[in-house]
Amino acid sequence: MNRFEALPSRVTVYEVGPRDGLQNEPAEVPTLAKIQFVNLLTAAGLPVIEVTSFVRPGSIPQLADAEEVLAGVERSGDTRFTALVPNQRGMDRAAGVALNGIAVFTAASETFSRHNTNGSIAETFERFAPVVQSAMARGLWIRGYVSTAFGCPYEGDVSVDEVVRVCGDLLALGVHEVVVSDTIGVATPRDVVTVLDALTRTVDSASVALHFHDTRGTALANVLAGLHMGVSTFDSSAGGLGGCPYAPGAAGNVATEDLVYMLNGMGIETGVSLEGVVDASRFLSSVTGRVPASRYYAAAVA
Amino acid sequence: MNRFEALPSRVTVYEVGPRDGLQNEPAEVPTLAKIQFVNLLTAAGLPVIEVTSFVRPGSIPQLADAEEVLAGVERSGDTRFTALVPNQRGMDRAAGVALNGIAVFTAASETFSRHNTNGSIAETFERFAPVVQSAMARGLWIRGYVSTAFGCPYEGDVSVDEVVRVCGDLLALGVHEVVVSDTIGVATPRDVVTVLDALTRTVDSASVALHFHDTRGTALANVLAGLHMGVSTFDSSAGGLGGCPYAPGAAGNVATEDLVYMLNGMGIETGVSLEGVVDASRFLSSVTGRVPASRYYAAAVA
Repeated sequence: MNRFEALPSRVTVYEVGPRDGLQNEPAEVPTLAKIQFVNLLTAAGLPVIEVTSFVRPGSIPQLADAEEVLAGVERSGDTRFTALVPNQRGMDRAAGVALNGIAVFTAASETFSRHNTNGSIAETFERFAPVVQSAMARGLWIRGYVSTAFGCPYEGDVSVDEVVRVCGDLLALGVHEVVVSDTIGVATPRDVVTVLDALTRTVDSASVALHFHDTRGTALANVLAGLHMGVSTFDSSAGGLGGCPYAPGAAGNVATEDLVYMLNGMGIETGVSLEGVVDASRFLSSVTGRVPASRYYAAAVA
Repeated sequence: MNRFEALPSRVTVYEVGPRDGLQNEPAEVPTLAKIQFVNLLTAAGLPVIEVTSFVRPGSIPQLADAEEVLAGVERSGDTRFTALVPNQRGMDRAAGVALNGIAVFTAASETFSRHNTNGSIAETFERFAPVVQSAMARGLWIRGYVSTAFGCPYEGDVSVDEVVRVCGDLLALGVHEVVVSDTIGVATPRDVVTVLDALTRTVDSASVALHFHDTRGTALANVLAGLHMGVSTFDSSAGGLGGCPYAPGAAGNVATEDLVYMLNGMGIETGVSLEGVVDASRFLSSVTGRVPASRYYAAAVA
């Protein structure tokens, strides 16, 4: 580590604000505002944006307008657009919209999987296996979320072996990238090293993304640990969207601004304009009335 | 880095909330509340607390009650108490109070030094040289802050050579620990490695502390980089006190809670009770009416 020679020279910042952020947003965000938010993120040069989720509208009403949002966003530049697709019904809805990739979702904790998806880990695989098949047939890129990889709100510690097993099963199914996710924001850098040490024995780090929530402030330190383990794709959300709506001060996904500021300062290329992301966050904040949790944002707009 | 073998097994968390935090606090905090805040920090097991500053009351009225606070705090456990002493007049005021150590203050940027202390870097040395002599005669431990070591609000980039030179001059004068300080919160991990690579060629890392502000969210990542460079003393403030009072969302010192949470999770001993620090922050927040900036605090009290 001492001289940072081994770090990736370029990182893919995977923007999840419109999906993971807005699905936790208590304020109602009009469809046109979502489209404008995504357009601003595209203008900021984000290389991939997870725009929405084709989940059952009854379970996440915030994202019930998935088709309209995807139909409305401007397709310019090199930005790729993805959506979460949990099951075949979602894939049917996504059939008519232009997408570059999709994401499926499972967990490393059985109890979390049951609470969150009403099915075991094996049942989530049964549900999204046909989705992955359809996506492959359409030539779409596919990522698979492994939630609660660093800790579970019900079980506490999560087995590293189980994280490795679920990641391996996703890749065997045809998924291109596994997203090792700290759903509840408990990871510290040692956990990141422990999980990646085990995972990269059988999986190429180029197929691994890391997804951190900044709930306890450790997200960027975890990113640094991930960089040192050879990971070069990190999820984030503009403004740090996605905090628990019932905990006003609680942070959501690591903020895109904070991530890009750190990577810029380390000489790691992202292609993302910090000012552009701040513009997107400022716009969304004007819609929701909530102050972004991003530290960089607070310093920049002060 | 990969297996974290080389990290320190124990870290000294140097609490600066009552001094660096409260000197930036716009709310008036009564002397008795300050004493109670320090007592709660002592009860939380903080090994060192910088309690106040013997600066001219006219310039920082928030800390004009330095003698009363130091006279009032409970002396229990192993906690050491220090105070910032900028000049001989301050040292005269500190003569009658019980202290374990003092801190002096200079900068790595001439322009910042002139704005902040109304003197050049050389002039700050002239002012505190007799303070260091007096402190040595009293058998006190002495630390020397090197502010703007990673960037200056007036000059921008700061020369690494100048940081190394100022640190060397402080140690030559008799100071026991130099505090390499990111006064404006601009550092990223690469900067930390660059400065420490240069500094530790001539200075033992055991004589170096790091002082980060979390203005742009990078503080804990910077701590991680510092740990890998062999540093084992880090400054923090309970609740992340010390944000700029004119920028509501702007973060102050890295929060003691967030620092201790990360170190705990990495198996690095601190002797500090996270719950105890949260208690101290909760108490102070009830006095100032301001919500602590600490991420951990927000998650813990939610």
